[in-house]
Amino acid sequence: MANSIYRASILQSYSQLLFQPCLSNKHCVPKKTNLLCFASSQLNPARSEVSFCIGTHLIPHPNKVERGGEDAFFVSNFKGGVIAVADGVSGWAEQNVDPSLFSKELMANASSLVGNLEVNYDPQILIRKAHAATCSKGSATAIVAMLERNGTMKVASVGDCGLRVIRKGQIIFSTTPQEHYFDCPYQLSSELVGQTYLDAVVSSVELVEGDTIVMGSDGLFDNVFDGEIVSKLAAHSDVVEAAKALAKLASNHSLDSRV
Amino acid sequence: MANSIYRASILQSYSQLLFQPCLSNKHCVPKKTNLLCFASSQLNPARSEVSFCIGTHLIPHPNKVERGGEDAFFVSNFKGGVIAVADGVSGWAEQNVDPSLFSKELMANASSLVGNLEVNYDPQILIRKAHAATCSKGSATAIVAMLERNGTMKVASVGDCGLRVIRKGQIIFSTTPQEHYFDCPYQLSSELVGQTYLDAVVSSVELVEGDTIVMGSDGLFDNVFDGEIVSKLAAHSDVVEAAKALAKLASNHSLDSRV
Repeated sequence: MANSIYRASILQSYSQLLFQPCLSNKHCVPKKTNLLCFASSQLNPARSEVSFCIGTHLIPHPNKVERGGEDAFFVSNFKGGVIAVADGVSGWAEQNVDPSLFSKELMANASSLVGNLEVNYDPQILIRKAHAATCSKGSATAIVAMLERNGTMKVASVGDCGLRVIRKGQIIFSTTPQEHYFDCPYQLSSELVGQTYLDAVVSSVELVEGDTIVMGSDGLFDNVFDGEIVSKLAAHSDVVEAAKALAKLASNHSLDSRV
Repeated sequence: MANSIYRASILQSYSQLLFQPCLSNKHCVPKKTNLLCFASSQLNPARSEVSFCIGTHLIPHPNKVERGGEDAFFVSNFKGGVIAVADGVSGWAEQNVDPSLFSKELMANASSLVGNLEVNYDPQILIRKAHAATCSKGSATAIVAMLERNGTMKVASVGDCGLRVIRKGQIIFSTTPQEHYFDCPYQLSSELVGQTYLDAVVSSVELVEGDTIVMGSDGLFDNVFDGEIVSKLAAHSDVVEAAKALAKLASNHSLDSRV
């Protein structure tokens, strides 16, 4: 089972990178995406293209340092940017299966499939194909977010990894964990009893310049209140430093025997 | 200011209505939407069209019964279905302005604009145009959700009205309130100092058959825990009865002097 100890956080700062309005650049995105871009531009014809600035930090559970923890993640600058976290289910250790193998292979497969035409830049299809390509025994929770250059961020999640969007010092978008019962999250598995991409919660949110996205395993969100995330971000303008600070806070909280 | 007393709830039960897969019916949705439908159908080619079953219930604040409360809502069966709630900001009463006028006119305007071509079935544009058409003095928080027949529900919200999606007894999607400070939500206003459609949080979620959507003003979500919403839904299969039960629960909680 996934453990409520901090394992990984990926913090994404979202900012404007290109300068040309989408509609005047036919080559900015493939045709199908361009249509979505056009719809968005009806609200703001001068909207520019956007992409992620990314900071990441991972602190493995103290008992799992040897294998680098059970969390895995990848980031990609494909299109507006892709970020993903997977959390290996620790219960597999009881069956002498290294829980980190499944999550790491899942993320490696997802990373290599990001530009796949059949994936069509859809996080739910990316989860389907990455899961199908994963041969390791085990299971993992997973979340994938894909940013279109027009500002639409699509998210697919199976289990209790999570994502927050912070705008002007407030959380304006949150994912919600899925679990069968306490400490048993929905999970992609090597076995037939697990969940699939069809069980993913699929959502999207329209981002604006200056938004900050925090993504992590349950180890982050179980140990750090949303208000603490907002405060930590306010204290660190650099995303790499902010990711590090959040990871440390989660780790410290998880080791605090007073709570 | 919006008051944390129960005012309105709209509960939506989401179910499959039509029987023909989208791809085999070229006339099911306009062209632009059909493209989205096609993308979705890559995941499940047999996906059928969907729309809302709707139950609503409104209990005004005891001190505001005379003018029917400060909340307003509308529902529409246009395309997959449209649902919206607005909550008149009660602070206007101190300036001898009836706070219900703005919210009611806003919703009336939104209702009449649902099929407007320029709105393009986009909840953020609907808020923009409804706000622009509203002449009453006052301000209101507002949330609009529009369901595409392919299962995509788009949501735009300004302020602290809210929405939950419940799937298999779990909340899988929540909106997050926006406020300047405690009890002062973001609000659409007759005055220049207020917020606009550009301040809306715009998100979407892919629904599946059997999902239940609960939408309401802060009066619902400030008085009823998410867990209570889930329990109440489990006890009522009929959406009209469930909406009534939730409204009563919120009202009872708001009048409970022990908390």
